[in-house]
Parts: sequence; structure tokens; C-alpha cells
Amino acid sequence: MLFKKEKYQIKTNSIGFYQDLEHIDGLGISSISANLYKDKKRDDIVLFYFRKGASHASVYTQSNIKSENIKWNVNNTKEKIYGLLINTRNANAFTGKEGYKSINNIASRLSDELSKKQIADEEEPKKILNKNLIFASTGTIGELFPEKQILNCIPDLMQKIKYNQNKYIWMKAAMGIITTDTKPKLSMEECKIAGTNVKIYGLAKGSGMIYPDMATTLGFIFTDAKIKGSILKYLLKKNIHNTFNAISCDGDTSTNDMVSIFSTGFAKNKEPKSYKENILNDFDKSLNNVLKNLAKSVAADGEGASKFVIVKVEKCKNEDDAKKVCFSIANSALVKTAIAGEDPNWGRIIMAIGKSKVKFNQNKLNLNIGANKIIENGKVSQNYNEETVAEYMKSSEIKINVHLGNGSKEFEVYTMDLTKKYVEINADYRS
Amino acid sequence: MLFKKEKYQIKTNSIGFYQDLEHIDGLGISSISANLYKDKKRDDIVLFYFRKGASHASVYTQSNIKSENIKWNVNNTKEKIYGLLINTRNANAFTGKEGYKSINNIASRLSDELSKKQIADEEEPKKILNKNLIFASTGTIGELFPEKQILNCIPDLMQKIKYNQNKYIWMKAAMGIITTDTKPKLSMEECKIAGTNVKIYGLAKGSGMIYPDMATTLGFIFTDAKIKGSILKYLLKKNIHNTFNAISCDGDTSTNDMVSIFSTGFAKNKEPKSYKENILNDFDKSLNNVLKNLAKSVAADGEGASKFVIVKVEKCKNEDDAKKVCFSIANSALVKTAIAGEDPNWGRIIMAIGKSKVKFNQNKLNLNIGANKIIENGKVSQNYNEETVAEYMKSSEIKINVHLGNGSKEFEVYTMDLTKKYVEINADYRS
Repeated sequence: MLFKKEKYQIKTNSIGFYQDLEHIDGLGISSISANLYKDKKRDDIVLFYFRKGASHASVYTQSNIKSENIKWNVNNTKEKIYGLLINTRNANAFTGKEGYKSINNIASRLSDELSKKQIADEEEPKKILNKNLIFASTGTIGELFPEKQILNCIPDLMQKIKYNQNKYIWMKAAMGIITTDTKPKLSMEECKIAGTNVKIYGLAKGSGMIYPDMATTLGFIFTDAKIKGSILKYLLKKNIHNTFNAISCDGDTSTNDMVSIFSTGFAKNKEPKSYKENILNDFDKSLNNVLKNLAKSVAADGEGASKFVIVKVEKCKNEDDAKKVCFSIANSALVKTAIAGEDPNWGRIIMAIGKSKVKFNQNKLNLNIGANKIIENGKVSQNYNEETVAEYMKSSEIKINVHLGNGSKEFEVYTMDLTKKYVEINADYRS
Repeated sequence: MLFKKEKYQIKTNSIGFYQDLEHIDGLGISSISANLYKDKKRDDIVLFYFRKGASHASVYTQSNIKSENIKWNVNNTKEKIYGLLINTRNANAFTGKEGYKSINNIASRLSDELSKKQIADEEEPKKILNKNLIFASTGTIGELFPEKQILNCIPDLMQKIKYNQNKYIWMKAAMGIITTDTKPKLSMEECKIAGTNVKIYGLAKGSGMIYPDMATTLGFIFTDAKIKGSILKYLLKKNIHNTFNAISCDGDTSTNDMVSIFSTGFAKNKEPKSYKENILNDFDKSLNNVLKNLAKSVAADGEGASKFVIVKVEKCKNEDDAKKVCFSIANSALVKTAIAGEDPNWGRIIMAIGKSKVKFNQNKLNLNIGANKIIENGKVSQNYNEETVAEYMKSSEIKINVHLGNGSKEFEVYTMDLTKKYVEINADYRS
């Protein structure tokens, strides 16, 4: 049965709304506390166990300084995945060979334990190897990775695997991976591949840490569809472009950013041979929706956010130009503080368009804020009324729309305002 | 007489220290109020009058949206300058043909009035033309330019020209061009060209506005040296690179940025024929000092600044890489909020180095904060002591030093921390 999508659609104008997820065949979830936080007890380790294995694809941070778990994944992780382990509190970044070795040690123990689980539970048990595992971390950079604490918690982690998920189990997992996030981030779609119903579930975290460090973004997508890794890779890369790569909270990029997709194949759909097959169209679109909803939730829950902001640049020569102008506006501290102050200070948007260095004819420039026309063909609109726009600026969702007037391409990005709360969260001394 | 430089050196660890300027031969200054601010009376128009003309060179904003006065300057202003007119409160940006025409009308009136002044005062009066004038503006974008008010104030402006400057007259001018700046910015050097003493005086403004709009940076350098415009142009471009182009307050670029140099020639030094002549070495160095001191003052007085920050990247393959890493650190909201919070959260600096995308060998990376070694050859220093660094973070000036270890080039930039005050200044609704 397909759920009614309207019911589950994330409403972007209500910051942090999430969807209730149900069961994905072939998946087990375990969320526990390894006591990684000194001052409080909370879930800080989450395991996703694919008992029959899963096809997989991941995209990683573009930073030149990558965390040790990401280096490990790149070197070791193969397509067939049995376990995804996520920890918070420690980023395992800039921890050198020791940090890398810790992941290796944890991988060895975890693959042993999962292999035992296979022998105990499965009809055709598989020997699970290190290369069948993948790791995600978020937390403080440069601190010794808590290898022992994580090793010690593995028995507990095994014991608590839930094979039949409901919304509470998903919620617990979503809460187990967040840091300074104020809300869990969960999204879902159901769609069809060649007539077979398949589910696409996702959870994400961003932005910041209790031990404040940075807006690490993690996103994990689970589907029961039967799709091989090379196609998943194509679909993930294609759809990350206008979703997770279209958000900005503060313009900072983490050493640990990672978005992965896993497919268990339990839906038993007709398996596509190539990414070009039409039977993937619906899946492609639904994957984009799930990724976009998660990405929007991350932006909406950006540190200190009081308003969700959508910047769309249209009628552009090419998408690259549109993206540049979008991010020039979305990353401008002056635009973001004006939005926080509910100030219709559109001069700052003009400034941000200008500093993007994208070329266009000023006489063709159009700017709307919400439904309010501000600039028409390079001139302040005759209908412009500052009071009306000031009233609109009180909304919880602000839409900025720019037409460059030199083409037909467009791009849209998601961000939030810059508030005193942001400074407060990030300037508080950690101890 | 050369002043003792030590006495006048701007101390970068005392934010906003300024120097006392004296007289520049051939220059007149007039600072008045044209009542451009509705709610208060302050000087908002400043005229620099070069009664025998001055050689000149300018650099302008790289933004694709340029203010109308800058467009006018580019189209009209020639090398020989008789008047520089600066207004605050209105940026004359995005004001279209009307804004451009306003500058033209003001130029016509001002050139007439200055021509009359020449006839009245000078032995060999010159007819001053529009092309002998140059204009600088800072203020709100998109508002109708107050042409009439400025035209009306020209008689008063003429009457109040001071031909013998002292520190009070310079201070009045420096105060007349500032907006949300908390301190006037004045700097000076004296040096020699082929044995003749020459003065280099400068004033600047940045960052932000009472009517908050943006961190427009304006810088004006005056010298009594005899140097032709083409050489001034070379020297200004050469020295802007590691001074005004090495500062960042919030990463936003104004439509109105402008730095100009004017030489009256009254020092009667031997005139250099080419920028390559050795007799310019001392002037070149002193000009760099004046520009650097002004640029540092702008960064130190950045909106809401509580700390002045110097980021230096050394041992780099090329200067471009060093600059990229510098600005990646200096523009990072997470680094800047950590500094505001006096938090030795060096992981964020690592993050900013990584996100710059500059390539280097992590095992050769060194990071110092002040005199404290944080990272040595890619590993946390054995001498690293968080408490000592936390103590250092309480200083009013923070030095961040990065060695990439793959070359011999370096770059240094100046910025400030990101405080709640910044958000407060920029989020307050304008009315």
C-alpha cells in the first residue's frame, strides 16, 4: 500500500516537521549509549544491520582534510554492506594513524560479532568482513577516538538490534545521531519500480555539536528496492546536487560530511540493468524528494535559526551561474542578519548578487521577496511598498526570488537566518 | 623633518588607534553637514580640493553591481584631479540613470564653483572641468540620491575649505566619512624620494552604516610627492594587494568600495620617470605601511568586533594558495565565533584549512595560535596545553599561524571576531 504522500510531505514553512517511518524489510536498527558524553547519558552509537546485505553508494566531504573514518571507508568499504555504524561526540578527524587504526579494530570486532549473529540467526549465514562495513562519525576534531568505549558497547549493540521497526525505533535512531540539532530529521516516500511498491526512508543530522564544532551533515537513505550499487551511485550523485549540495547554514564544510544509500532488495522488484531504464523514473523522483526534505530540515534547523530561507535564481544563462548567485545570497552574513531582524533591506541582496561576479544585464534584473515585487527590469518596482514587505519579513519562511534575465536555467538553495543565538551556540566555551 | 615613526606607528593590538596628521601642501579640506541624516546633524559631505591639481589613481569594487558614482568616475574622471567629494548616508547604488545624472549635475556645479575659486584665489587660474572631479559614496542602496541637498550645500562647502590642515581638520574629515565605524581611521608616513622628504597621509572608513547596509570600504591617500598618475596606478595596485585586499569583516563586498591616491607635487622631489626607479623604494614601502595601517584599522573596527585577528599562512607553494587558506579561516563563521567565545577550538581552524581545497601534505602541517604550538607535522603538539591556549584567547589580538610545508610563499590577512553585537548592529530594523 502506498501512503498518501500529502500526509507525509514535510512542510517547509514549519521548521523541523518530520515524518513517521515504518518498517524496511531486511534492516535491523540498534541505538545505544556508549557513554561518550561525560555529563549526560544519551544514545551516541547507532548500528544499521542489513542481515542479507545491501547494495550501497556514498558521497563524502570535498574538504581536503577528511576524517579517519571517511578515509577508512574509501579504502575498505565495498559495495555489499552488512553494517553501518554511526557515532557522535568524536569526529575522528585529525586523529592520524591512531584514529584510522581504531576504526580498523572496531571493524574487526564488529564483523566478528555480526558473523556470529549470522550463524545464530540466518539460514544461509555469511562470513561478514571488514569491507562489508561502513562508518560515520560526528563530533569534536582532534580528540583521541574513544575506541575502547565503542568496542565495549558492541555486545549491548548486538543484543538490542530491532528487526521490526516502527516510528519510535526510527525516532530513537534519528535522536541517536544528532548533536546540536534541535529536532530529529526523518523523511520517507513510497513509489513503484515496474509495478512493485518500494519504500525510501531517510534520516539526517546537521548542524553543530553540543561540544560545538561544526555543522557536520550526515544523511542515510534506506530502501527495500532491489537496485545494484552502480545505479545507486549514479542516482545518489545525480540527486545530491540540488538537495544536500543546495543547503548552507554558515558556509562551513565539515571534515566528516557523508550521505549514503543502502538497498536491501527485499521488495523483489524487477531489477533495473541500467540507470537509463524508465522503470527508475518514479524512484529517482521519490529519492530526490526524500533527500530534499532531509536537506531542507537540516537548513531549517541550522544553528540558531529563527527563519527558514529559500533562495531561487531563475532565467539564468546556466545552472552554475544560478548556483553561484544563490550561494552568494545564502552565505551573506549581511543578508542573513537582515532576515533575522525582519528588515526588508533588499539593498543587501543586490550587494550579494553583485559580489557573486556572475555577469548579467542590470536592466533585466528582477527581484521578488515573497510575492512582493522589489526590482522590475533593473528598477525599483512602482508597486514596491516597504511596509508590506516588512510585514512579510515577519513570516517564518522567507522566499527570495531573483531573475537574471539572460537564459532559462535555475537553481534553488535552502538556508536560515543569522541570529544572536547562532553566535551564542558557537561562542560558548566548550568546558 | 621626518617624524619619529615609532611615535606614529599604529599598534595593531590596540584596536582603532589612530595617528595625528598635519599639513599637506596643495590640499584644502572642507567637511560640512548637508543634513543627509534625518534624525541628527553630523558632517556628511567632505571635499578635498587640490588647488594646483593632483595626479591620481583609483581602484574600485570588483562587484558586478557598481554604484553610479563609481560608473561616473570610470567614464569621466581623468588623471588630473581638482576635487574629491565624499558623501555618506546614500550609496547612490542601484539608482539607475537618475543616480548617474545626479552625479553629473553635482559635478557641473562643483566644477563651476571650483573654477570661480581658482579665479578668485590663484595666480594662474585653471578652468576646472567635470573630468577633474572624482566622487565617493557610502550608505543605503537603492534610495533616491539626495542631489538637491548636496547641490544646496556647495556654497557652504566652498566657504569652509581649510588650506592649512592640522590634526583637528583631518579628524573632522575622517569623522565626516564614517558610518557605523566606532573610530576614525587615520594613518601617516614620511619618507624620501631621491633625498627629498615627502608625506603620505591617509584616511579610511569601514564597516557598515548607521542605516545599516554594508561594510563599504573607502580609503583615500594624499601625498605631496611629485609622481605621475601612471606610476601612482602601478604603486596603488601593487600595494592594495596585501593591504585593503587582505582584510575581511564578514566576507561581503560593497557596490561602492574605492581606494584612491592623490599627489599634489608640492614636495618638489625629483620626479621618477618609471615605476622601476630605485628612488621610489622608500615611498613604495611607506605607502604600503599607510595602506596596511588603514586596512588593519578597518578590520579591527569591523562591526561588533571585540578582538582583532591576524591570520598568516606560510611555507606555501604559491601566494594564491596562502591567500585562499587565509580567507577560508578569516571568513569562517565558526572560527570567528570561537574567537569571540575565547575558545581555543582549533578543530575549526583545521576544518577551515580543509575546506579551502588547497592541496598539501597533512603530515607537514603546522598550526600555532599566538606562541602556542598546536599542530606539529600533522600531529597535536606534545607541548599543547588547552589551558594555556585558553588563557591566550583572552587577548584582544589573536594570531593564527599556519605552515603548509610545501613551499616558501606566504600571505597575511586581518579580520575580527563574530559577536552577538555584529548580529545586533545588522539585524536591527532600520526605521
